[in-house]
Amino acid sequence: MPTEMKRWVLAAHPTGMPALENWSLETAPVPEPGPGEVLTRAVYLSVDPYMRGRISARANYAAGVRIGDVMHGGGVGVVVESNDPSLQPGDIVESMRFDWQEFNVQKAADLRKVNPELGPIHSALSYLGMPGLTAYFTLLAAGEMQEGDDVLISAASGAVGQIAGQIAAIRGARPVAVASSDEKLEWCKSLGYADGINYRTATNLVEAVAEAFPNGVDVFLDNTAGPIHDAVMQNLALHARIVICGTVSLAGKFDEPDIGERFLRNIMVARATVRGFLVFDYADDAEAARLEISNWAKDGKLRHKEDIMTGIENMPAAFLRLLKGENFGKQLVHISDDPTV
Amino acid sequence: MPTEMKRWVLAAHPTGMPALENWSLETAPVPEPGPGEVLTRAVYLSVDPYMRGRISARANYAAGVRIGDVMHGGGVGVVVESNDPSLQPGDIVESMRFDWQEFNVQKAADLRKVNPELGPIHSALSYLGMPGLTAYFTLLAAGEMQEGDDVLISAASGAVGQIAGQIAAIRGARPVAVASSDEKLEWCKSLGYADGINYRTATNLVEAVAEAFPNGVDVFLDNTAGPIHDAVMQNLALHARIVICGTVSLAGKFDEPDIGERFLRNIMVARATVRGFLVFDYADDAEAARLEISNWAKDGKLRHKEDIMTGIENMPAAFLRLLKGENFGKQLVHISDDPTV
Repeated sequence: MPTEMKRWVLAAHPTGMPALENWSLETAPVPEPGPGEVLTRAVYLSVDPYMRGRISARANYAAGVRIGDVMHGGGVGVVVESNDPSLQPGDIVESMRFDWQEFNVQKAADLRKVNPELGPIHSALSYLGMPGLTAYFTLLAAGEMQEGDDVLISAASGAVGQIAGQIAAIRGARPVAVASSDEKLEWCKSLGYADGINYRTATNLVEAVAEAFPNGVDVFLDNTAGPIHDAVMQNLALHARIVICGTVSLAGKFDEPDIGERFLRNIMVARATVRGFLVFDYADDAEAARLEISNWAKDGKLRHKEDIMTGIENMPAAFLRLLKGENFGKQLVHISDDPTV
Repeated sequence: MPTEMKRWVLAAHPTGMPALENWSLETAPVPEPGPGEVLTRAVYLSVDPYMRGRISARANYAAGVRIGDVMHGGGVGVVVESNDPSLQPGDIVESMRFDWQEFNVQKAADLRKVNPELGPIHSALSYLGMPGLTAYFTLLAAGEMQEGDDVLISAASGAVGQIAGQIAAIRGARPVAVASSDEKLEWCKSLGYADGINYRTATNLVEAVAEAFPNGVDVFLDNTAGPIHDAVMQNLALHARIVICGTVSLAGKFDEPDIGERFLRNIMVARATVRGFLVFDYADDAEAARLEISNWAKDGKLRHKEDIMTGIENMPAAFLRLLKGENFGKQLVHISDDPTV
């Protein structure tokens, strides 16, 4: 058992697109758990678009990371030492606050015990974790998706989008993917997406959406904001539902106003609903959703792809890949050996 | 019975704020009803913000008025001659298509027979008509208003706003008015509005909304779009509901994009819902709502104010007053004597 570990602290709040220099790598003693606490070793750490908000100097829904703080982030790992009867060494646990470090001390009550029978350990951060639940509840709850709906999903090969497209298809809707490369779109179609739009090569996104949606968009799972959002707002079906799940395309201008065309009249004419989404609002229904998603995966109806880097040293690099859309599949960082295999 | 009448036809599509020159006054023969049709004489004609959309060259949810067409518009009047057994001469009727003329031929099936016991004849165009039903359904259906909610209503002394504020108060919410003069705000407070913001004299609307809503805005009935909308989006309570009911502040730039700050991140962080509204989506529940509003008015719980011009010659002038916010109360034009008094 080591006595020292590596961890990343925030060195500076980014003002636009973050860069490697915004964090610095430190060596620190492995912490000791107090009463009711647990020492965990990270197996996989997650990078997710919401983290851009956490490192802004501007207020956000999640408490911000201050300069000198260990960088916040979710992870899945193994209990090394427990001072709480609810968890034993060897248990697999997940939480939003593993943070960017090899070991962590967390309150037992803040950890979710992972059932390894539902899926491989990293699935707790992908299709059985926040991204999978986001896909599930954006479409089926916030987006009120019905059989036969024409559904557009941005960042379609990403952590949320890859699961969302398959859930839409399983539930009898017609999902169309937006992604940054033809390779990603081909893979999306192999999952069950009916069609795809390459936002980097499309000459006119408004026309591209109109072509793919001759009757307008019924449900839009908006993971990015930006030009795709704008194109959808000009192609709304009557009573369209737009779920604002992420705004990663604004990562480079997080602390400045997002200036552009507003679509209030389009919303009114279509009697559309634009709804902000946070997965934690659906915590009461999470276990049932996780079980349903796990069953789809076990039955071969739901596939998934991870984009895995290795080593704590790569946390900032993995995060920047994600913000720039360079990942292909759910971006993870493998920190230590998986004790379940 | 006259054989000729006056009517207004569209002379040109406006490109920005409409002007008197967009219409021309004609003399035409009084039309004759065919089978199943009814000849009506207008008693009151209504001008409403949605008409700005009808005269745009750009497509809208309502079929547009073409150059040379009689200008579209709702009204209430009396049946002069009927070729349909469902209506008799002397019946009071209301429809969205009296249009800007003294007499009209309409299909009996397109007319709603007005029950004069529910309120005075002009109420069919105000608190018992489209504006009153809009107030009712924006708050209680689309806005999901609950007791205790902090509610902001723009154009608060207008046709919709004056009724909405009183419904909010009756249902135990706390309505705050936005209007263009202190005189209008004082009147709003006399109706039951708890507070008011003068958008013409406020030095900073974002701060003015923050002061009036220390816990954020729960429900926003947005009749105007523009700077008030923008200020609310920066003061959202968790799970705020914004009902886009009208965009009259954009009347002067109807055919150009509305450029400004977008608030997708605010919507996401607050998990807010922005919903477009059209009253006709609630037709099935209209009669019950009309009865409830009528009872409130008879019980003295609900007051109303009309701003009435006289004579068919004043239709464009009345409409322009409305678009410029110069009216005080529901803007109507009195065309002929009320046969019920």
